[in-house]
Amino acid sequence: MNTQQQVTPMTTDVFSTYESEARTYCRSITEVFVRAKGCYLFNDKGEQYLDFLSCAGALNYGHNHPELKAKQIEFINSDGLQGALDLHTHAKAEFIEAFQQKVLKPRDMNYKMQFTSPTGTSVVESATKLARKATGRTKLVAFTNGFHGMSGTSLGLTGNRHHRQPNADPNVFRMPFENYMENMDSLAYFEQLLNDKSSGIDIPAAVTVETIQGEGGINVASVDWLRRLREITLEHEILLIIDDIQAGCGRTGKFFSFEHAGICPDMVCLSKSLSGYGYPMSVLLMSDHLDLWLPGEDNGTFRGNSIAMVTAKATIDQFWSNDMLENHMSANEQVIKNVLARFDRDFDHLIDECRGRGMMWGIEFHNPQDAADLISLCRKNHMIVESCGNEDMVIKLFPPLNIDVDNLKKGLDILENSIRAISAEKTQAIVCDGEAA
Amino acid sequence: MNTQQQVTPMTTDVFSTYESEARTYCRSITEVFVRAKGCYLFNDKGEQYLDFLSCAGALNYGHNHPELKAKQIEFINSDGLQGALDLHTHAKAEFIEAFQQKVLKPRDMNYKMQFTSPTGTSVVESATKLARKATGRTKLVAFTNGFHGMSGTSLGLTGNRHHRQPNADPNVFRMPFENYMENMDSLAYFEQLLNDKSSGIDIPAAVTVETIQGEGGINVASVDWLRRLREITLEHEILLIIDDIQAGCGRTGKFFSFEHAGICPDMVCLSKSLSGYGYPMSVLLMSDHLDLWLPGEDNGTFRGNSIAMVTAKATIDQFWSNDMLENHMSANEQVIKNVLARFDRDFDHLIDECRGRGMMWGIEFHNPQDAADLISLCRKNHMIVESCGNEDMVIKLFPPLNIDVDNLKKGLDILENSIRAISAEKTQAIVCDGEAA
Amino acid sequence: MNTQQQVTPMTTDVFSTYESEARTYCRSITEVFVRAKGCYLFNDKGEQYLDFLSCAGALNYGHNHPELKAKQIEFINSDGLQGALDLHTHAKAEFIEAFQQKVLKPRDMNYKMQFTSPTGTSVVESATKLARKATGRTKLVAFTNGFHGMSGTSLGLTGNRHHRQPNADPNVFRMPFENYMENMDSLAYFEQLLNDKSSGIDIPAAVTVETIQGEGGINVASVDWLRRLREITLEHEILLIIDDIQAGCGRTGKFFSFEHAGICPDMVCLSKSLSGYGYPMSVLLMSDHLDLWLPGEDNGTFRGNSIAMVTAKATIDQFWSNDMLENHMSANEQVIKNVLARFDRDFDHLIDECRGRGMMWGIEFHNPQDAADLISLCRKNHMIVESCGNEDMVIKLFPPLNIDVDNLKKGLDILENSIRAISAEKTQAIVCDGEAA
Amino acid sequence: MNTQQQVTPMTTDVFSTYESEARTYCRSITEVFVRAKGCYLFNDKGEQYLDFLSCAGALNYGHNHPELKAKQIEFINSDGLQGALDLHTHAKAEFIEAFQQKVLKPRDMNYKMQFTSPTGTSVVESATKLARKATGRTKLVAFTNGFHGMSGTSLGLTGNRHHRQPNADPNVFRMPFENYMENMDSLAYFEQLLNDKSSGIDIPAAVTVETIQGEGGINVASVDWLRRLREITLEHEILLIIDDIQAGCGRTGKFFSFEHAGICPDMVCLSKSLSGYGYPMSVLLMSDHLDLWLPGEDNGTFRGNSIAMVTAKATIDQFWSNDMLENHMSANEQVIKNVLARFDRDFDHLIDECRGRGMMWGIEFHNPQDAADLISLCRKNHMIVESCGNEDMVIKLFPPLNIDVDNLKKGLDILENSIRAISAEKTQAIVCDGEAA
Repeated sequence: MNTQQQVTPMTTDVFSTYESEARTYCRSITEVFVRAKGCYLFNDKGEQYLDFLSCAGALNYGHNHPELKAKQIEFINSDGLQGALDLHTHAKAEFIEAFQQKVLKPRDMNYKMQFTSPTGTSVVESATKLARKATGRTKLVAFTNGFHGMSGTSLGLTGNRHHRQPNADPNVFRMPFENYMENMDSLAYFEQLLNDKSSGIDIPAAVTVETIQGEGGINVASVDWLRRLREITLEHEILLIIDDIQAGCGRTGKFFSFEHAGICPDMVCLSKSLSGYGYPMSVLLMSDHLDLWLPGEDNGTFRGNSIAMVTAKATIDQFWSNDMLENHMSANEQVIKNVLARFDRDFDHLIDECRGRGMMWGIEFHNPQDAADLISLCRKNHMIVESCGNEDMVIKLFPPLNIDVDNLKKGLDILENSIRAISAEKTQAIVCDGEAA
Repeated sequence: MNTQQQVTPMTTDVFSTYESEARTYCRSITEVFVRAKGCYLFNDKGEQYLDFLSCAGALNYGHNHPELKAKQIEFINSDGLQGALDLHTHAKAEFIEAFQQKVLKPRDMNYKMQFTSPTGTSVVESATKLARKATGRTKLVAFTNGFHGMSGTSLGLTGNRHHRQPNADPNVFRMPFENYMENMDSLAYFEQLLNDKSSGIDIPAAVTVETIQGEGGINVASVDWLRRLREITLEHEILLIIDDIQAGCGRTGKFFSFEHAGICPDMVCLSKSLSGYGYPMSVLLMSDHLDLWLPGEDNGTFRGNSIAMVTAKATIDQFWSNDMLENHMSANEQVIKNVLARFDRDFDHLIDECRGRGMMWGIEFHNPQDAADLISLCRKNHMIVESCGNEDMVIKLFPPLNIDVDNLKKGLDILENSIRAISAEKTQAIVCDGEAA
Repeated sequence: MNTQQQVTPMTTDVFSTYESEARTYCRSITEVFVRAKGCYLFNDKGEQYLDFLSCAGALNYGHNHPELKAKQIEFINSDGLQGALDLHTHAKAEFIEAFQQKVLKPRDMNYKMQFTSPTGTSVVESATKLARKATGRTKLVAFTNGFHGMSGTSLGLTGNRHHRQPNADPNVFRMPFENYMENMDSLAYFEQLLNDKSSGIDIPAAVTVETIQGEGGINVASVDWLRRLREITLEHEILLIIDDIQAGCGRTGKFFSFEHAGICPDMVCLSKSLSGYGYPMSVLLMSDHLDLWLPGEDNGTFRGNSIAMVTAKATIDQFWSNDMLENHMSANEQVIKNVLARFDRDFDHLIDECRGRGMMWGIEFHNPQDAADLISLCRKNHMIVESCGNEDMVIKLFPPLNIDVDNLKKGLDILENSIRAISAEKTQAIVCDGEAA
Repeated sequence: MNTQQQVTPMTTDVFSTYESEARTYCRSITEVFVRAKGCYLFNDKGEQYLDFLSCAGALNYGHNHPELKAKQIEFINSDGLQGALDLHTHAKAEFIEAFQQKVLKPRDMNYKMQFTSPTGTSVVESATKLARKATGRTKLVAFTNGFHGMSGTSLGLTGNRHHRQPNADPNVFRMPFENYMENMDSLAYFEQLLNDKSSGIDIPAAVTVETIQGEGGINVASVDWLRRLREITLEHEILLIIDDIQAGCGRTGKFFSFEHAGICPDMVCLSKSLSGYGYPMSVLLMSDHLDLWLPGEDNGTFRGNSIAMVTAKATIDQFWSNDMLENHMSANEQVIKNVLARFDRDFDHLIDECRGRGMMWGIEFHNPQDAADLISLCRKNHMIVESCGNEDMVIKLFPPLNIDVDNLKKGLDILENSIRAISAEKTQAIVCDGEAA
C-alpha cells in the first residue's frame, strides 16, 4: 500500500481563503489530488482519474515514470548540484550530449542551445530579444489565437484578450493563422503586406508561430502553409521562430512538430515536456550564426535547474533513442482518428470539427455549453479533459504519448458515451418541447 | 564513499561547442561540479570549494540540506503530483498553511498568495500587471541599479544596460536610489516630481524597489528611506511593490527584508530561496483588496512545481518555526561586521566601503581590477565569491544563512588573506617602481 | 502688366545648397514658380502650367481666387488680429457661424468644432487623443495604404514605410482597406477579429479612415463598405474618425466625402482646403458628448491663424451657399468619367484601372515607369500631375473643383496625348525588337 | 477712421455654443478683439489693451508691423504662389538667402534648413525623428517643466501632466532642469546616469532643451549649465537639440537664445515668431552631416506657407540686418531689470523670484491666487499678461521686442500698481483679522 493513500481527505478552504483569485483549473476540477502514476491521477479518497490533460502538455510521458523517477532519486541521493546557475555540471553536460546526439543529429539539425529561465514565457522572451538584436528591427509578427506566454513581450504575442493586460508589448503585427477566415489565403495576405511599401506593416524581426495552436483551439497549420511561411520569411530575411513549447517534445507524433513540414526554423522554443517529469526547464535552439549573445546578456537564476536536466536526459534515453515511441504514437493516432471520424459523422449536430495531429487533438463544438457539459460528464466518469479556443468551444485531448491502447480506448469511450448523453438529452429536450407545443 | 566522487573528470568542450555564448558564471568558474553539501561544492576531482555565492541567493540554506532532501524523496517516492498547474494538492495546501501560520501570522501580515510562473522575472511581471490593472495607470517607477528580471516589463525595470535589449517596457520612470548621488535627497526629488504637475512624471501605478539592491552592488536602503518611501507612496496612492526575490527569505537576517523598516508593502515578490533547495518557485503576496485577478487571467504551466512546495514547506518547518536561525544569523552578522570593519580600516587604499545587512554584504573596491583579482585569488584558495554592481567593483558575500561560524570565519580568512596579498603586491609594485626610479 | 513677371529667372542653387534633402516635389518639378491664378502656375520665365495637383488637395478652389483675395486684403488692411491663439475674434466668430449655418445645418449635422494646431497631422493627433480619453482605450485601427500625417501618433496610423520612422506610435492595428486583397472581405475579417476574444486584437478606441485614400493610391471605399464600417464601430462602441483632410472640402463632389454613404462619423478631421487659399487651418468636428477636453488640455500657438479663418469664411460664402459648385462638379465629373472610361478601354495594356469620385481620380498603371513617363510628358506639355500609391503607380488627378470645362478638357487631352505617346513608343519598341529578332 | 472700428459689439455665444471646451485663453480674456497694432489690441468697443503676451511669443515684433504688412500685400496682390508644398518659389529663395546671409553667416553658423510642417510641435517631431534615424537610438531626454508641443513624440517630451494624454511617446527619460531641486547638480546627476552602465538610463539619441523654459515657468538655464550640457552631449555622442521656438527669434536679446552661452547645437527648432507676423512657419536647422533625410521622407502640406516666408524675409531685413534691435532690447532689458529688482525687494512677501533674460521675464509668486489676482487687475487696467509654470504661479512678461520705452514703462507701472494693490489688500486683511481677533 502506498503511504500517501492514508491521507485524510481535506477541505479546500485553505485555497479559497489564501490563494489568489487567479486560480483557474481547480475551480472546475475541485478534487484534491495526492498522487499520480502514468495516465492516472489519484485524489485524497483514493479514487483514480484518467488524465487526458497531461499538465497542459507538460507531462507527455505520463506521471512519475519509473525510469525517470529512479534517475532523479539517484541524483538527489548523490547530492548533485541542484541550483547551478550556468556552472558546468555533469547533469547539464549529459543532457546536452544526449540532445545533440539522439535528437538533433539524427534529424540533421544544427542548433546551439541556450538554457533560458525555465518557463515557456521566458524562452519566448529570449528568442524575441535575440531576433531583435540580430536583425536590428523592432516589430514581431504573431498570429490570431496564438499563445506564447504571460510576460511583457510574450504577452504581446499572445492573442487572448483575457490575458492582454497592459504589460503586453505593443510592437506586434497580428496575422491571420491558416484558415482563420474562410476563403482567405492568410499567407498571400501576409506577402502582400510585406511587398507593399505602404501597407503599414514594417518588415519584422521575426515571425513566431505554433505549428498547432494549443490554447488557441488546436488549430493545425498544414504542411504546405508552414513551407510557404518558411519561404516567405527567408525571402524577406525575417527570422522564423517556432514556438514548440506545447506541440513539440513528441506531442504531434515526432519530436519537433515542424518535422512534418520538413522545414528548418531559425529558432525553436522548447519547454513544458522537455524535462519529461513536469520540472521547469526551457531551451532555446538557435542557428549558430544567431548566437550573438554577450556573456550574461540574457540570464535567470533557475536556468540551471539540474533535476530537470537529469530527467530530461533520462527522457531522451528512454523515449528518443529508438523509434518505438514514434511507432506507438502512430498506432494510437490511428485509433484516435477512427473514433473522431465517427464523432464527426455521428454528432455533426453537436460537433463542428475534429482536428489534430499525432497525440494532439481537438473537438470543436458548435455550442460552448455542450463543451462545458462534456467536461463535466467526463469528470463524473473519472476522466479529466479541458477546453481551449475562443469561448472554450474546443475539447482538448492530450493523453500521454506513451499511453497504452486500452487506456486510450477507455478514454475515447468515456468521451463517446458522454457526447452521446448530451446528444440524447438534446433530442429529449426537443421531443419534450415538441410535446409541449 | 559517495558514488558521485568516482565520476571521471570531464572536458568542458560540450559546453563551448553546443551551449550559447550567453553563459557567464562558467567562464570564470571553470570547474565541473559534481555534488554539493551545505556550504561546499565538490568538483569532478573531488576537490571542495567554500561557497559564498549560494546560487546568487537561491540557496540560502546551503546545498542539499538533509531534512529537505528527505522530504522531497518521500514526496517523489510516494508518486506525488509533480506537475500540478493550479490544481488542489496536498503539497500546496501544506505550504500555504505553513507560510500563513509560521511566516505571515507571527508578523501580523495579511496577504493573499499567487503562485505565479516560478521565476523571479515572472513574479515581477505578475505584480506589475496587477498594479496597472488595479490603478488603471501605465507608468512604473524603478530605481537606478535595480535588478528585476529579464522579461519585457521586468526588463524595463532592470537598470543594467547590458541586458536592456529592445524587449524592455519603456513605461518606466527611473528614480535615484538612496545615496545614488552624494548630497542628493532622492526621495525629496521623487516627491517634488510627483507634486509638480509639469514635472514630466505621471503618477505611476507602482514603485518597485529592492530594500538592498543585490545585483546593483549591495546598495542598502536605510530604514528611514524605506519608511519615507512608504509614506510618499501612500500619500499619492501609488502601490509599493517590494522585490524581495534576493533580499528576502532571510537573507537580511529577517524573513522579509522590509521588516527592519517595519513597513507594509502592497505587494511582495518572493522567489529564489523560497523553495529552500534551488527549485524554481515564486509567490506574489498581495493585500486582499488588490486580488483583482479574474480566474486564469494570469497563469503559467509551471506554477504548480510541487517538489518546490514540498521543500518550501520543509524549509519553513526547519528554519522559520522558531527564532534559532535569526539568532544564529545575528551572531554571524556580528562576526562579519567585525571583520569588514577591519577591512575598511586596514585596506582603505583598496576598499571604498563595506556595507550590508544580515548575511548580505558587499565590499566595494576603488578599482575593478582589484575586485577581479580578489575573485581569482579566492578561487585559488578554493572559495567562490562573485562581484556585482556597476563595473563589477563590489564583491558580494552570500554565505548560507545557516553556515557554522567556523566555515564563516574560514571564508573571511581566505578573503582577508587574499586582500592582503593584493595589497602586498601593490605595495611591492610601488616599492619596485620606487627602486626602479 | 503684373510686376512679378519682371522677375529675373533664378538658379535653384539656393535650394540645393541650403535646403534639406527632405525636399521632394521640387526634384521633379524643377521650375521656379512666381505666381499663380486659378488653375495655372507661372514660372519665372512667364510660362504657364496647368495645375492638376492643387497643392496636394489644399487648393480646391484654384490659386488666388479674387473674392478670397479681396477679403484677406481687407482683413490685413484693417489690422485684424492675425495671431490670435484662441481669443475671441470676429474672424473666428464669422467662420464658425458660416460653417454651422451653411455647411452643417443644411446637412443635419451637429458637431462641435475644435480649432486644433493648423496642420493635418495635428488634427489627427487631437482626434486620436480625444478618442483615447473618451474611451479609456489605447489601441487605434488604421488601414493599409492610409495616410494621416507625420507626427507621432498620426505617423503610427500612416501606412507608408518610407515615412515610418521610430516616432510612429506602435499602438495601431492595421486592417486591410476595401479590396486590398482580391476575394477578401476586409470588414468580415475585422468583425471576426473583434468578436474573437483571442484574436490578438483588442477593442480599439477608434477606427480612423479616409473614404478615398489619397496618398495611398486613390483607393475608393464603396458606400456599402462605409456603412458596414459605421455599423460595426457602433456595435462595438468604437469611435469612427473620418480623416477628410484630403477627400473633404468638396473634393469628392460633396462637402464631406462621407455624405455619399449617408453616415455620421463621431469625429471628422478637416484641414488642407478648409481655408480655401492654401493657408494652414484645421478643424476637428466632434459629436457633442465627445467634447471632453478640459480648458487648454489640447492646444497650439497657431490655432488662431486668423487670415485662414477669413478666407475660410469667404470660401463658404462663395462656394457653399448654394448648389452651384456641386452642380458644376457633377457635370465635370461626367466629363472626366467619359474620358477615363475611354482610357480604360483603349489603354488596358498600360492601365490597370481608373477610379475615383467627384474631382478625385486616379489612373493606375501596370508599370511604375509608365506612370513616371506620363508625369514627364505632361510636364513637357506644361501640365502638372503627380503620382501616389505603392511604387507611385497611380497618376493622381486633382484639378480645382471650380475649373472651367475647357481647361478640364485641355488637361484631359494632354493626358490622353501623353498616354498615346507612351503607348506608341512601346509598340514601336516591340516592333523594333521584332525586327531585330 | 478704420472701418473695422465700426464693428457692432458681439456676444460670445457662438464660441460657447459651437467651439470645443478645449478653448482656454478666451475664458479669462473674454473681450472680443477686432484689430491690433504694435503693442496694442483693440476690442469691439474700440478700447485698447496693452499686450504683454505677444501671442505666446509668436508676435515678437508686435502686431501688424507696417513694413511686413506692406510686403505681404504686395505678395498677395502679385498673385504669389501661396500654397507651394516644397516647390521652388521666389518667396522661399529670398527667405533662405536672407536667413543664411543675415542670421547664420554673421554668427558663424552653418546649418541646413528644413521647412517642416509649420507648427512648433511638428518641427520638434522632425528633429527627434532625424535624431533617432541618425543615431539608431530610440530614447530621448527632456527636462522637467519642458514644453515641446502636443503631438505624439513632442508630447512625450512635454512635461505638463495636464496635456500628457496617451498619445505621449513613452521613450523619454526625464532629467531635472537646472535648479529644479535645491542643492542638486542636475548635470552631475545626468552624467552619472550616463556613465553608470546599470543606471537604467540608456544612451539617448538626443537631448531636447529650451534655454529658458517658457511654459514651464521662465526657468533660465545659466550659460555654464548650457556649456556643460553641450560638453556632456558631445562626450557621449548625443545630439543636442535646442528648442528655440519660444526663446529664439530674438526673445532673449539675441536672435538665438543659445548665443549667450556660445554653444553650437546639432539642431535648432524655430517657429512662433519666425514669420514675424503670426503666420504658421517652422524651420529645423541641422548640421550638414545630419541631413540624412531621403526625398519626401518627412513632409507636410503646409510646409510651403509662402506668405509666412515673405514676412519672415521682411522681418530679417527690418530687424536683423543691423544691431539696432539688439541695442534697443539691451536698453529695455535694463529698464525691466531695475523694476523687477524693486519688486523682488519690495514685495518679497508676495514674490518668490523675478527672473529672465532679454525680453523674456517671469515673476514667480508664493501663492497662485496672487498671480491670478494680478492677471485680473492688469486686465481691469487694460493690460494683458498671462501666467505659466506649475500651478500658474509665474506671471510671464512678453512685451514686443521692439516696444518703445514709454509703453514698456507704462506696462511695468500697471504691474507695479496692481501688485501694490494686492499687497495692500493683504495687509488690510491681516489688520482686519487682527481687529476681529
